[in-house]
Amino acid sequence: MSKNYNDIQKLQDKHLEELFKYLRMPSLSSENLGIEEMAKSVKELMEEIGFKVQELRVGESYPYIFGELGSGDVTLLIYNHYDVQPAGDEKLWESKPFEPEVRDGHIYARGVADNKGNLLMRLQAIRYYLENYGDLPIRIIYLVEGEEEIGSPNLDALAKAYGHLWKDADLCIWETGGVNEEGSPHTELGMKGVTYLELHSKLGDHDLHSGEASMFESPVWRLVQALNTLRSPEGKVLIDGIREQIKPPAERELQMIKDQMFDLQETLRSEGRDSFLNNEKDKDNILKFHYFEPTCNICGIWGGFMEPGGIKTIIPMEATAKIDLRLVADLDASQIAGMIRAHLDKRGFTDIEVKELIALPVGKTDVNNRFLERSHMLLEEAYGVKPDVTVTSGGSGPFYYIASQFNIPVFHIGALYPANRSHAPNENIRVKDYQKGLSAMLHIIDGLGDTSA
Amino acid sequence: MSKNYNDIQKLQDKHLEELFKYLRMPSLSSENLGIEEMAKSVKELMEEIGFKVQELRVGESYPYIFGELGSGDVTLLIYNHYDVQPAGDEKLWESKPFEPEVRDGHIYARGVADNKGNLLMRLQAIRYYLENYGDLPIRIIYLVEGEEEIGSPNLDALAKAYGHLWKDADLCIWETGGVNEEGSPHTELGMKGVTYLELHSKLGDHDLHSGEASMFESPVWRLVQALNTLRSPEGKVLIDGIREQIKPPAERELQMIKDQMFDLQETLRSEGRDSFLNNEKDKDNILKFHYFEPTCNICGIWGGFMEPGGIKTIIPMEATAKIDLRLVADLDASQIAGMIRAHLDKRGFTDIEVKELIALPVGKTDVNNRFLERSHMLLEEAYGVKPDVTVTSGGSGPFYYIASQFNIPVFHIGALYPANRSHAPNENIRVKDYQKGLSAMLHIIDGLGDTSA
Repeated sequence: MSKNYNDIQKLQDKHLEELFKYLRMPSLSSENLGIEEMAKSVKELMEEIGFKVQELRVGESYPYIFGELGSGDVTLLIYNHYDVQPAGDEKLWESKPFEPEVRDGHIYARGVADNKGNLLMRLQAIRYYLENYGDLPIRIIYLVEGEEEIGSPNLDALAKAYGHLWKDADLCIWETGGVNEEGSPHTELGMKGVTYLELHSKLGDHDLHSGEASMFESPVWRLVQALNTLRSPEGKVLIDGIREQIKPPAERELQMIKDQMFDLQETLRSEGRDSFLNNEKDKDNILKFHYFEPTCNICGIWGGFMEPGGIKTIIPMEATAKIDLRLVADLDASQIAGMIRAHLDKRGFTDIEVKELIALPVGKTDVNNRFLERSHMLLEEAYGVKPDVTVTSGGSGPFYYIASQFNIPVFHIGALYPANRSHAPNENIRVKDYQKGLSAMLHIIDGLGDTSA
Repeated sequence: MSKNYNDIQKLQDKHLEELFKYLRMPSLSSENLGIEEMAKSVKELMEEIGFKVQELRVGESYPYIFGELGSGDVTLLIYNHYDVQPAGDEKLWESKPFEPEVRDGHIYARGVADNKGNLLMRLQAIRYYLENYGDLPIRIIYLVEGEEEIGSPNLDALAKAYGHLWKDADLCIWETGGVNEEGSPHTELGMKGVTYLELHSKLGDHDLHSGEASMFESPVWRLVQALNTLRSPEGKVLIDGIREQIKPPAERELQMIKDQMFDLQETLRSEGRDSFLNNEKDKDNILKFHYFEPTCNICGIWGGFMEPGGIKTIIPMEATAKIDLRLVADLDASQIAGMIRAHLDKRGFTDIEVKELIALPVGKTDVNNRFLERSHMLLEEAYGVKPDVTVTSGGSGPFYYIASQFNIPVFHIGALYPANRSHAPNENIRVKDYQKGLSAMLHIIDGLGDTSA
């Protein structure tokens, strides 16, 4: 614990140049572009550092890079992914998405935040440790996937086939991680589940003249009516059987909400809104709803004539809605489609087709796990302030497959900050957070290996 | 009444060749294509026949061709339009839309049914009468507009400025007209009103991650909820104040429904449906709802991510619906937008923008008018069977501006048949109906001029 990591400052240029090499390589899982090349580069880097690496595949999956290194009483699992989101409209970028650039202390590039920055920073920390202090004091298992941005469709199968390789890990560092607005390290105890569905309504085989609306049903109205039964105007999910499964927060969770920093005005400003749902103004109520209520959201809806200002009088022959439900414990993502089917059937909407596209389970860390407490203490030591602990992320990810199902507690450490613009143009991290993350990571390795703790 | 029109058969080639000339000229009001040329051609033909023609314009309108010819105790107003719908996807046409072709006794071309066929047939009948029998026994006022396919946006203004030119007409022949499936002449006593609106919902200035659905309202849900208050699942319009204004049918109208021929199975087949609204199976109930209930229909709806099978988890920043309300007496089309505004405001949907694109009043013929009875008798004489009289068209048109507001009764006679595919690919009429319409038109002129009747 007495080690001084200040000299990693000298390696800054070398570390960033190495990061840039990976940022320059597009690795788009959605388009299968550069995936195999990126998997190979990650594998080579890990081997060079000293990992014993396996390339795992299940079914038609892209390669998972799985590495093991070191030994000790504690086993740390690290999860990252090497794929990135598409750049989107390049005109909205101030510098080219795959030509990384440092401006005003920020590194701009697609994937730098999500999550090549964290991937490289963590590997560089491990290499630095080995080069400067000899063997690792802990065992590290490193899992890097290439399908996170397309919903980790094969992670369930991977965990079934190869979960024995990591299921005994003592704790896990998640892909994301960094600091909040005040500079405190931010960590989350879970991720919401998500079920993504397409609802499709169709009647007949061609559009009808709208003068016939007095004779024939409209598939658009059927869809609107069916949707309307799924959610209350206050935002509560009304699917039959779901509310009974929603658990009230525990005392400890309510206390975490009270303790959480959350700037209402800054959140409204950054999201371009005037008010929160139901015009709620109380921070604790807002966060309680956010962490403990499932949501049913319409990601998109379409049907019929869609030209602003134009005139066409038809009963469209079909309409579609894409909805996603974000789930909290103990809701089961894989049962949602069936529950909606039964809910709609009971109300006579047997004509509405329900198609499941994604079902990712809720992920949750056991808050009583002793390694979780230790990780939070190490974060506090590394950053000099108490970590900002959030009950759950608003987002979803393969948290359950990697960690929850094996009761591995999860924490976060990394190079991110709130305005990192993941998935958006001008994605970026700050150089200072990258440097801070590197030294914090070294402290974590060191601290977990301290058998006197 | 003893005249024999059989010799018009000899003129068939000449008549069709003349019709083809007009069918070859595209006259698309929606794109202002060929409009002035077509107006000029119609004007020249009418002058050649002997009409005293004026070209009328109001504001930025396309030209209205207004002609007067003949004298007598009876004044007959005829309304047609010289504009046509766009051809749409030409690949769906078996012959080119603006290259008329006769196949198996049908004439195929864009606009042949709607309504250049009726326009030419009527003018040819008038010319034939003059050439074979001398002066007309009645006065004919002929009004041809060029904006019917874009909702007759200037007819209200035209009627206000020039209505004195035709307001004293005794009866009016509407643009459409022809026979039903059994070959009986079909006429209608009115047209529904229509109000066409755009409802727009917007929150913030960018899409949000759907993980924030537990914090922020969705404009798509707002739109879905607002729409859902406008119509019952049974298809009844629920806008505040509207149901009180719906008149029950009169005894005479109920009798007309009972008398009306309407083949349920054939209608389902041609519309590609398995059932009528609310699974109604009784013909009289179906027609009663059709003629006497207003409708609220969604012509189109869109917002957010609209890619079938794709995954994108967002709260879209906006959503839009295009709705049309078909109105029955005594609903006022111009008040509907305001009623919806008040209805939505009362329910807290002040954020939903309501924009009126069209408001066309209900058109209705006074069933007790003696000229109406006479016109139906003449139709029966011309076709040898009782006319098929419908309470109202399911569609809408400038019926009120042309006729109802001046208490001019309306009837229909023409070259159409049910499968004419107006507004669709392969629009067509049958040569035999064109010929029959010509002789029937001659009989009408003759009959209305018979002072002994």
